[in-house]
Amino acid sequence: MSKKQQKLKARLPRGFVDRSAEDIRATDEMLGKIRKVYERYGFDPVETPAFEYTDCLGKFLPDTDRPNAGVFSVQDDDEQWMSLRYDLTAPLARHVSENINEIQLPYRTYRAGWVFRNEKPGPGRFRQFMQFDADTVGAPGVQADAEMCMMMADTMEALGIPRGQYVIRVNNRKVLDGVMEAIGLGGDENAERRLTVLRAIDKLDKFGIEGVRLLLGEGRKDESGDFTRGAGLGAIQIDMLTKLIDDQNYENDSKSFKDHLDYIFDSHPAVSAAGAEIGDLVKLVQSAGYGIDRIVASPSIVRGLEYYTGMVYEAELLFDVTNEKGEVVQFGSVGGGGRYDGLVKRFTGRDVPATGFSIGVSRLMTALKNLGKLNTVNVVAPVLVTVMDGDTDALGRYQKMVQALRQAGIRAEMYQGNWKKFGNQLKYADRRNCPIAIIQGSDEFEAGEVQIKDLIEGKRLSEEITDNVTWRESRPAQIQVAQNKLIETVKAILASQAEDRRRTAAI
Amino acid sequence: MSKKQQKLKARLPRGFVDRSAEDIRATDEMLGKIRKVYERYGFDPVETPAFEYTDCLGKFLPDTDRPNAGVFSVQDDDEQWMSLRYDLTAPLARHVSENINEIQLPYRTYRAGWVFRNEKPGPGRFRQFMQFDADTVGAPGVQADAEMCMMMADTMEALGIPRGQYVIRVNNRKVLDGVMEAIGLGGDENAERRLTVLRAIDKLDKFGIEGVRLLLGEGRKDESGDFTRGAGLGAIQIDMLTKLIDDQNYENDSKSFKDHLDYIFDSHPAVSAAGAEIGDLVKLVQSAGYGIDRIVASPSIVRGLEYYTGMVYEAELLFDVTNEKGEVVQFGSVGGGGRYDGLVKRFTGRDVPATGFSIGVSRLMTALKNLGKLNTVNVVAPVLVTVMDGDTDALGRYQKMVQALRQAGIRAEMYQGNWKKFGNQLKYADRRNCPIAIIQGSDEFEAGEVQIKDLIEGKRLSEEITDNVTWRESRPAQIQVAQNKLIETVKAILASQAEDRRRTAAI
Repeated sequence: MSKKQQKLKARLPRGFVDRSAEDIRATDEMLGKIRKVYERYGFDPVETPAFEYTDCLGKFLPDTDRPNAGVFSVQDDDEQWMSLRYDLTAPLARHVSENINEIQLPYRTYRAGWVFRNEKPGPGRFRQFMQFDADTVGAPGVQADAEMCMMMADTMEALGIPRGQYVIRVNNRKVLDGVMEAIGLGGDENAERRLTVLRAIDKLDKFGIEGVRLLLGEGRKDESGDFTRGAGLGAIQIDMLTKLIDDQNYENDSKSFKDHLDYIFDSHPAVSAAGAEIGDLVKLVQSAGYGIDRIVASPSIVRGLEYYTGMVYEAELLFDVTNEKGEVVQFGSVGGGGRYDGLVKRFTGRDVPATGFSIGVSRLMTALKNLGKLNTVNVVAPVLVTVMDGDTDALGRYQKMVQALRQAGIRAEMYQGNWKKFGNQLKYADRRNCPIAIIQGSDEFEAGEVQIKDLIEGKRLSEEITDNVTWRESRPAQIQVAQNKLIETVKAILASQAEDRRRTAAI
Repeated sequence: MSKKQQKLKARLPRGFVDRSAEDIRATDEMLGKIRKVYERYGFDPVETPAFEYTDCLGKFLPDTDRPNAGVFSVQDDDEQWMSLRYDLTAPLARHVSENINEIQLPYRTYRAGWVFRNEKPGPGRFRQFMQFDADTVGAPGVQADAEMCMMMADTMEALGIPRGQYVIRVNNRKVLDGVMEAIGLGGDENAERRLTVLRAIDKLDKFGIEGVRLLLGEGRKDESGDFTRGAGLGAIQIDMLTKLIDDQNYENDSKSFKDHLDYIFDSHPAVSAAGAEIGDLVKLVQSAGYGIDRIVASPSIVRGLEYYTGMVYEAELLFDVTNEKGEVVQFGSVGGGGRYDGLVKRFTGRDVPATGFSIGVSRLMTALKNLGKLNTVNVVAPVLVTVMDGDTDALGRYQKMVQALRQAGIRAEMYQGNWKKFGNQLKYADRRNCPIAIIQGSDEFEAGEVQIKDLIEGKRLSEEITDNVTWRESRPAQIQVAQNKLIETVKAILASQAEDRRRTAAI
């Protein structure tokens, strides 16, 4: 028996979190603004479920810190393995392939959804998080990548991030492929090593140029003493790569970026051709008015996922924040993507080139909070009808009042806790920030009246305002009116409170 | 090598589905309307993640057709088992318990979210589906249950379901407990059998009174020949239960429902007391204007989940639909809930009474479709800027045009497929239902002009309208204007198309 009475511990698995009302409302508002941009660009929503067959997802995840893991998988009763999606791109490729005969290409869609990573959770690193993606499937040309970059830029501005505080950086995996060839890392036998080099370059943001040099060479030991094995490149190779990526804020237009590459890699044909392709993208976006203050070629952009085959792009926020170590750093990436021409072909065997990007929703929200661009949505708490008497007749009267308020469009509720402690009811109203409390005891009921407490004004008065003008302007904090004046009086008080908020906001 | 080239089959695991643009937009609109009702009632959003520790969820699922399953579970690397939530109530109890010191009770929250059931999928039965819940935690009184019933009724009407087409049915598990006692099924030793009886009663909707009688007795064979073992009750017991549940549309007010119970069960004290409690609820909602045409006591309401401890309630739609067997049946339940006073106590050891309900989002959407109450949201497809010339200069010009349209608030896109087949571009515009196509070849470019095709009018003209008036009123399906008149001309055509839609809708 004693075992049965042992209490369960209420706790969440590591890496998962609950979401508060404020967070949900802010996210919804942000998603709404992003959706509006995507819709104006001609994209339509399409969604896939949380599970896919494991083989359909493929193994494209960036460095997972658990061997053979990274995803949550379960075996179905027909022995097939299914996994929770780790991003929204692999499922989209499955969706397009499964419906390829009905879908009109180019297929332009967007979706927000939860994705799951079975990784070691850390600060700001969750095992369930939301992504907001847009993709064009069946679009072979650089103009589709260019459109993605412009759409990311427009999204940043729609969220209130001022021009100059963000930049969209573009690179091309083919540049990186050519560079690998140029430094002698071509061929199937070097595939593993190339990946190590790419991942080292991808860490420029995090570890700086010296950190990347260590990762390109023997390896790097972090503060905790953990050692990450490097790519083992020689000094000349490391120097060339350093020259390639060193200048993050590289001023460029179509011609000079190619020149930059040609200079370092001695006009290596593959590097040069890939550089020219980036030049085309830059030229396209500039024709549409997007200068290098918004969209810029950046040779260090890699993107972690393995399925990219061409252009890769990233939205970076440029303002400073203080990180957990107390260092002032740029906020950095809030999303990105690239061209994945091979994902649909895995299923259909036919070429279906595609490009798209993904926004990290909670990371972007953190950024907006930092910038003060996240207007916490102003939701007024409900009017509280208090309970002075708990018999069914009285409860029926309170219920009737509260329904009348609601039918008049006023957010309202009857106190649902233990009504006998009236102090608890007022404490509840205070903690919830209720604007008004309605009180009707048996005396008031018999007189056909109700008491209406303006809780906001009451709070203000109790904060001992000594200024004369304020005193004169203050409303009475509590009045008693005839029952049939309830709705109009409540409406009037709510209106004055709203006016006060507007005035305060204007100061 | 040949193995490597073998194509993957693109398919979804059974019981999971993709969601179309139309579905997503309709769901969002519906959720928005429901949210508005819950907000007006004073509820705030709170959400939990997809995973919980398996022990936190507990085993409250209704009859699962897989032993020890029903949920999707994975083992974490610290050996602890986690499961995907199968509903939103058990996770809410965990959330409240974990934060019990910060939370102000009563805690009134709502949430929409995906839940997962590891069951055999069937027609209309998915392994991932969305629920929309509202709960009041820390509310001991019948007035909280009454509020839930009224909120469900208001939700139905907010969605356009006319009064008379829905009803909220209420019962009390304590009525059922008392009835069990009265027919000699009390005591711990009969727990299993009571559950079988409850589940038999719960099937009234599905199998009718005769089916329930079989399930209360020896058992029932379905059309496929599968036999479900019954509760093995005797004839007198079955007759009493039949009398209890037979009249689904039982006219009642607070008094007569208790009378009904007293008559059948010979004023058995437990049954009588529970009947009186339902009477209180009916009286409360009637004080607030909700008559028995909206909220009615129904002795057959059970609700499948095991954690309910008192009132249970269900929203039922009354209009007829034809089921998969071709039979005309009432649409039935679209959601429900009840009082679960023990769920938080599992964690905290202290009494935290709670009540709440859950709406089955896709089932409700099916109902609204049947009723013609689901206005498919009218989203106009994008204006298509066609590509006549693929060099970077020309692409830059098209891109500039499309960005100018977007900046003017017009939904627009440049054709992103293979531009060389112009027929494909027009086919794309047609399949997507684009309202307008913009064309600029090199001739038009040199003349500083653009062609604008009204694709809606073009379609109408091609449908050979012979009526004179229509001919006279028809717009030219294609015009050529100066480049600087592009925006205003497109706006004008879109406005006439919108006017046409309004007129057609008005007919």
